[in-house]
Amino acid sequence: MSNIEMIYEAEQRLAPVVRYTPLLSSPFIDELAGRKVYVKAECLQHTGSFKFRGAWSALSALAEKQRQQGVIAYSSGNHAQAVAYAAKRYGISATIIMPHDAPQLKIDNTKALGAEVIIYDRLKESREDIGDKLSSERGLTLIKPYDNQHVIAGQGTTGLEIAKQATEAGVKSADVLVPCGGGGLTSGIALALAESAPDMKVHPCEPEGFDDVTRSLQEGERVKNPTMGGSLCDAIVTPMPGELTFPVMKELCGNGLIVSDAEALKAVALAFLRLKIVLEPGGAVALAAAVFKKNMLENDTVIVVASGGNVDPGTFQEALSSL
Amino acid sequence: MSNIEMIYEAEQRLAPVVRYTPLLSSPFIDELAGRKVYVKAECLQHTGSFKFRGAWSALSALAEKQRQQGVIAYSSGNHAQAVAYAAKRYGISATIIMPHDAPQLKIDNTKALGAEVIIYDRLKESREDIGDKLSSERGLTLIKPYDNQHVIAGQGTTGLEIAKQATEAGVKSADVLVPCGGGGLTSGIALALAESAPDMKVHPCEPEGFDDVTRSLQEGERVKNPTMGGSLCDAIVTPMPGELTFPVMKELCGNGLIVSDAEALKAVALAFLRLKIVLEPGGAVALAAAVFKKNMLENDTVIVVASGGNVDPGTFQEALSSL
Repeated sequence: MSNIEMIYEAEQRLAPVVRYTPLLSSPFIDELAGRKVYVKAECLQHTGSFKFRGAWSALSALAEKQRQQGVIAYSSGNHAQAVAYAAKRYGISATIIMPHDAPQLKIDNTKALGAEVIIYDRLKESREDIGDKLSSERGLTLIKPYDNQHVIAGQGTTGLEIAKQATEAGVKSADVLVPCGGGGLTSGIALALAESAPDMKVHPCEPEGFDDVTRSLQEGERVKNPTMGGSLCDAIVTPMPGELTFPVMKELCGNGLIVSDAEALKAVALAFLRLKIVLEPGGAVALAAAVFKKNMLENDTVIVVASGGNVDPGTFQEALSSL
Repeated sequence: MSNIEMIYEAEQRLAPVVRYTPLLSSPFIDELAGRKVYVKAECLQHTGSFKFRGAWSALSALAEKQRQQGVIAYSSGNHAQAVAYAAKRYGISATIIMPHDAPQLKIDNTKALGAEVIIYDRLKESREDIGDKLSSERGLTLIKPYDNQHVIAGQGTTGLEIAKQATEAGVKSADVLVPCGGGGLTSGIALALAESAPDMKVHPCEPEGFDDVTRSLQEGERVKNPTMGGSLCDAIVTPMPGELTFPVMKELCGNGLIVSDAEALKAVALAFLRLKIVLEPGGAVALAAAVFKKNMLENDTVIVVASGGNVDPGTFQEALSSL
């Protein structure tokens, strides 16, 4: 089965539960960016990020018997909440492995959604190793955050919606900027648009110091980030591009765009002021790129994915202070 | 022509420009409210509030020649921005009369949208008098914020969307809570739902000290607020219920609900945390009522209108400090 067929199948499974998120815009943002900017508000998705798409896609693709035994996932927080909520809706158990430096809000929410949370040290331990071990010990199905075909297909449904909404807005060609960690959302959207809106070009967007995807695309092979901690953009900090996602991004994506933490915070404030949506810094890097890296874009129209909004109040207040 | 027919006609005129805003929810809010809560996120409407619906409805209903002469409006800020933006899209002039104590953000935005802004003293002058005078002097059409049949019809399209979205969610009966100033949105929604979802009951929601609609409904006739200044909920502070809107509310609405400024601020924080939307205090009073006045509601489901998000950063930071 081709990947686009998996995305269409995921779309069918997601239709009854997922939110069709709006495509927003503001004349004030257009002016700052020097072009028309559309913002796909995935922060309004269930659990506050696009991750619910991939989680529901993966859980709904499992055989009933396997699903009933429960699932396990590792995540800095958005995939965690998404898997926890999807499991809760299925009435099955979820075990989530989260880094010690994940935002407290994300840890609290994951627990409140009924998951068992296990904390690990992001700087010293491998979440992959912990996930593999618990998964085999407890008979749980590991739902990887991006290196899972069904997760990628679920995230790709965002791309199908973008294609439809762009058509409704009369937009045919555009740069599509996507906050990028492991590449699940970026590769999913790239696959969906290659089929449904071939004149659009997807660009992964990353925070400074954690630009593994941008460098990997330049070098033609997967390279790692030098460190894993210390970014405000926790949602999109991963060790390196995914094994499944990188070949897709290498084939379909344009160059990566890199923004500073300060630029991401300014984009959080801009989304507050002009779009009335709440973004976390990692979810705002694509909007930041549209405004602060505008000279690197080619099309008259840019479509930005605002991928998540699970931000601690303190960080948000810091962002507003930049206004 | 009956009012529901005017709403259907407004829906046709609005379709190409207005945003169909999402109906959001969160299991965390359901738990606080003790029932299922849906939130109609009109803060995501163009210019950050539902007011764009009424403004576009009124401007699009004018004869071309009259529209070309320009429009005038008075408003604490949301109707102001809405009329300014609608006028800008039509390429016509807009003059807006705003109170001296309107949030700076709303004044700045209205100017940035190309309108001429005239400031008046809310405590000493009558905006109605100023509006009438300028309107006749300059040949401008006055677009009243709620006592205008086309404005009410435009706001009523929110109710048509609520009815559709409730049906999709499997909801037939519900309490529908609406932030209420002059009553344009409340009466419009009540008219739309009376036709399209007759098992729903609309309740106007107001801030303490500015509960003119609640008291008017109790007394059966229009009564005034004792004062006009000093509420955080500036968006919904008006002298008294509208001449056109009150008879509709009297016929169709249930009792009013009153919340404190502190409760409105907590609802702003709740919407930030659980829905990832930005609300101003006046736009959050219905959500506040769903959570803090839950004993006054009857149905298992409540639909809350989150009517606007044009809040100054300082007020928003104050709201987040309540978390």
